[in-house]
Amino acid sequence: MAKKPSIPKGTRDFSPAEMVRRNYIFDTIKGVFCKYGYMPLETPAMENLDTLLGKYGDEGDKLLFKILNSGDYLKKADETLLANKDSNRLTGQISEKGLRYDLTVPFARFVVQHQGELTFPFKRYQIQPVWRADRPQKGRYREFFQCDVDVVGSNSLLNEVELIQIVDEVFRKLGIRVVIKLNNRKVLAGIAEIIGEATRLTDITVAIDKLEKIGLEKVNAELAQKGLSAEAIDKLQPILSLSGSNSQKLEQLKEILAGSETGQKGIDEISEVLDVLKELNLATDVELDLTLARGLNYYTGAIFEVKALDVEIGSITGGGRYDDLTGIFGLKDVSGVGISFGADRIYDVMNQLDLYPPEVTSATQLMFVNFGAVEARYCLRLAGELRQKGLRVEVFPDNAKLKKQMNYAHKKNIGFVALVGEEEMNKGIVTLKDMNSGEQRSVKPEEIAEIIR
Amino acid sequence: MAKKPSIPKGTRDFSPAEMVRRNYIFDTIKGVFCKYGYMPLETPAMENLDTLLGKYGDEGDKLLFKILNSGDYLKKADETLLANKDSNRLTGQISEKGLRYDLTVPFARFVVQHQGELTFPFKRYQIQPVWRADRPQKGRYREFFQCDVDVVGSNSLLNEVELIQIVDEVFRKLGIRVVIKLNNRKVLAGIAEIIGEATRLTDITVAIDKLEKIGLEKVNAELAQKGLSAEAIDKLQPILSLSGSNSQKLEQLKEILAGSETGQKGIDEISEVLDVLKELNLATDVELDLTLARGLNYYTGAIFEVKALDVEIGSITGGGRYDDLTGIFGLKDVSGVGISFGADRIYDVMNQLDLYPPEVTSATQLMFVNFGAVEARYCLRLAGELRQKGLRVEVFPDNAKLKKQMNYAHKKNIGFVALVGEEEMNKGIVTLKDMNSGEQRSVKPEEIAEIIR
Repeated sequence: MAKKPSIPKGTRDFSPAEMVRRNYIFDTIKGVFCKYGYMPLETPAMENLDTLLGKYGDEGDKLLFKILNSGDYLKKADETLLANKDSNRLTGQISEKGLRYDLTVPFARFVVQHQGELTFPFKRYQIQPVWRADRPQKGRYREFFQCDVDVVGSNSLLNEVELIQIVDEVFRKLGIRVVIKLNNRKVLAGIAEIIGEATRLTDITVAIDKLEKIGLEKVNAELAQKGLSAEAIDKLQPILSLSGSNSQKLEQLKEILAGSETGQKGIDEISEVLDVLKELNLATDVELDLTLARGLNYYTGAIFEVKALDVEIGSITGGGRYDDLTGIFGLKDVSGVGISFGADRIYDVMNQLDLYPPEVTSATQLMFVNFGAVEARYCLRLAGELRQKGLRVEVFPDNAKLKKQMNYAHKKNIGFVALVGEEEMNKGIVTLKDMNSGEQRSVKPEEIAEIIR
Repeated sequence: MAKKPSIPKGTRDFSPAEMVRRNYIFDTIKGVFCKYGYMPLETPAMENLDTLLGKYGDEGDKLLFKILNSGDYLKKADETLLANKDSNRLTGQISEKGLRYDLTVPFARFVVQHQGELTFPFKRYQIQPVWRADRPQKGRYREFFQCDVDVVGSNSLLNEVELIQIVDEVFRKLGIRVVIKLNNRKVLAGIAEIIGEATRLTDITVAIDKLEKIGLEKVNAELAQKGLSAEAIDKLQPILSLSGSNSQKLEQLKEILAGSETGQKGIDEISEVLDVLKELNLATDVELDLTLARGLNYYTGAIFEVKALDVEIGSITGGGRYDDLTGIFGLKDVSGVGISFGADRIYDVMNQLDLYPPEVTSATQLMFVNFGAVEARYCLRLAGELRQKGLRVEVFPDNAKLKKQMNYAHKKNIGFVALVGEEEMNKGIVTLKDMNSGEQRSVKPEEIAEIIR
C-alpha cells in the first residue's frame, strides 16, 4: 500500500496538543456542571433507526449515517426495489441502526426507557460526538462533539436561572467574554396572536431573526411576500423597533401584548428569570432579544443563545425549555430545559484568542537524558521517586545522541531536563536544565520536585 | 409511539452512577499514563473501509460495522450483483466507511499520515469506544471501550519496563491484585526451531496455550493430530514442564534453546526486562509464562498479559512489542510496544470486588430544600457562595413536598441537606442535616463548607 492513508472527509484526528486543549475545555465545563449537581450520562453511538427517524425533519433523516446490517443483508430485500435501484426505500430493509445525530433524542429515549429507575428532576450532562452526513465546510464537521446539560421533570424557572449561572461561570472560567441572549417562545406566540397571524409564527420569527442581518425594510418586504397582511405588518413595527434596557423593553412589551394571555405569561417568565438573576452577581450581561428564534419546533418557553464578544463566530452555546421532550417516545408531560455548549466553536474561539493558561500546553515536567544502560537504570529509580511525588516524568528510552534527546524534550514542551552521567552518579547529584531559561545547575535529587513546582 | 424505546443489542447506556465509576477508572488510568509522559490522542469513529479491511482477518472483516453511503447509494451499483443479491460483493459499492474495530489500526494510520509532524519516540494513549458486530453475550458488547497506551519509534527494552511499571501502578491505584505474565515471541519461535518445526509456530503455541486448561496429555494429543512428529513432541516435553522461579526457568530455557539464535535473543530480552524491574520495587509479581501466546500475528518481541488474582475473569490487560505496526500503511521499520487495558473487564472486577473509594459514589455534597420563592432566592445566594468555595451544591428547583425533596437527596446520595425557612432566614442560620447520621444542627452559613469537608 503505497498511498498515504487518510480519514473520511469531515472527520478529524485530535493530536495530543489538540487533545490537551480540548480536554481543558471539557474539564472546565464538566467541573461547573458538577458544582450544580449535574451528573454524566453516555448513550451508545448507534441507535435503532426507528428511534432516530422522523425526529429531525426530512432533511435530518437524510443526514443520518446509517449502518449496513451485518451478514447477508440483501437476503430479505425486495427484488423490485433492487431492480429499480430505489435507494430511498431500500434503506429500511438493509439498515436498522444509525449513528446518533444529536444528544437530545438519545437523552429523551433514555429517560423514557429508564423512567422507573430515575429520580426527578433528573439533571444530566452528556459530552459525546454526534455524526451528520452534512457537506463538510470550514467549521462544519461530519463528526463533532456536543456538550449538553439538561434538567427534566421540573417546571421551575429556577432551572433557567441555574443554566444561565452555569453559562456565566463556564465562560468566566474559560476567559471568553460573552453576552447571553434570552427570549421566550410564549412572547413570540403572543406577538403572532396580537397581530392577528397566530398560525404564522414560524414565518414571522424567521423574518424577525434576519433583522440584524438585512434590516427592517427587507424584513417587512419578506413578511409581505410571505402573505402577511399590511395591517399585521403595521402592528409588528413597534415590536421590531423595541429598544432600551431589558426592563424598558419588558414595559413596552407588556402594553403591546396586553391582549394575549400567552404573551403575558412569556413576559412574566422572562421577568422572573431576570429578576432572580439580578441578585446573583453574574459577570455576563443577559439581554432580552426578541429576534432570537432558535429551535422553535420544540422550545416552548425560554430560549437562550450565547455570543462571543471578541470573535465573529455566531452562537457558541444555545438552548431552551421544551415542555414535551419525551412525548415522541410516549411519555407525556415531562418538561425540561437544557443548554448545548458548542464545543468545536468554543475550541475555535479559545484558539483564536489564545486563552489557554500556560500549564495547558505542556505535559511532561521533567525528562532524564539517557546516557547508557547503567545511567538509565539509575535514572529510572529517580524518576519513580519523582512520580511518587506526583510529577510527570520521562526517561528517554534510547541511548541516542544528546541532540536528538534534547530536541525531543524541546518539541514536547518539557520544562526541565535532567542530565545524569557517571560524574553525577558518583557525586549523587543531578544536572538540571531549565528548558525555558536555558539555565543549568547541579542539584540534589530530593530538591528536584520543589524546583520544578 | 406506544412501544417503549430500546437500544441496539450489544450496546449500553451508562447511567450517572455507572459513569461516575467508569470515569474514576479512566481518570486513574489516565493519571498514571500522564505521569510517564504519554499524551492523549483521539481518532474519528469512522475510518475509510480501505484502512480497516484486511487488517483483522476474514472474520474481522465480517465483524466491521459498515456505513451506508449517503444519497442515492444504489445509483452506481452493479445490476448483476443486485439481481443476484450478492451482499458480499455489493458492500464495497454501497459503503466506503466503517466504524473502527480497535484502536491499533487507527493509531498506525495516524502515525503514517502524520509522520512528518510527530516527534519520535511517540508516546500516546487513546481511550475510545470500538465497535464489532460480534454475537453479544455476557461480558461481550458490540460497543465497548479500549484503553491503549503505546510508544512507537524506539527499540529500547526500557519501554517494556515502563509499560510494566504502568500496569503495576494502575492496578495498585485501583486496588486490584494482579499478576503480570510475560513471554516473548522470539522464545516461542526458538522453541519451534529447536524441535524442528519452525513453520508450525502457530499450531504449537495454540496447543501450548491450552496447557493450563486441558493438561499435558491432551496438548500432546493435539500436537500429534496437527501432524507434529513424535520426535518434535518429545523434544517439546521439557519446555512444557518447565517450572520454578523466573530465573530458574530462564536457566533451563537457555540450555534447551542453545541452538537457536532467535531463542537466545528472546531469553536475553526477557532477562533484561526482569533484571531492570528488580530494582524498581513493583508491588506486582511479574511471571515468565511460555504458554502466553496472544497476538502472534503481529507481536514480534515481548508479550504481556495481566490476570486478576481475586476474580475469575481471564485477562484484563494485555499487549506486546510489534516491529512493524505501520508497515501495512507503507511506513517500514517503526517498532512499537503497547498495552491495552480492558476497560469493561476492569469495570466488572471493580464492581464485583466493590473497590471504589467512598467519594466515588456521591456527587452533590449539599442540597438546599426549596420552601418557596423567597426562601429559594435566599438559598441561591448561599449556594453560589459555597460553589465558589469549590463545593458541589444544588437548590431543589420546585417548592415540592418536603418528603419528595428529601427523597431526591437520598436517592442521589447527597451527603448534607440544608433547611432554610423563614425562621432560619431571620436568624441568619441554616439547619444542616447530615444524611448519613440523620443528625441535624443549626450552623452559620460560613461554617458549612468546613463541616461538609
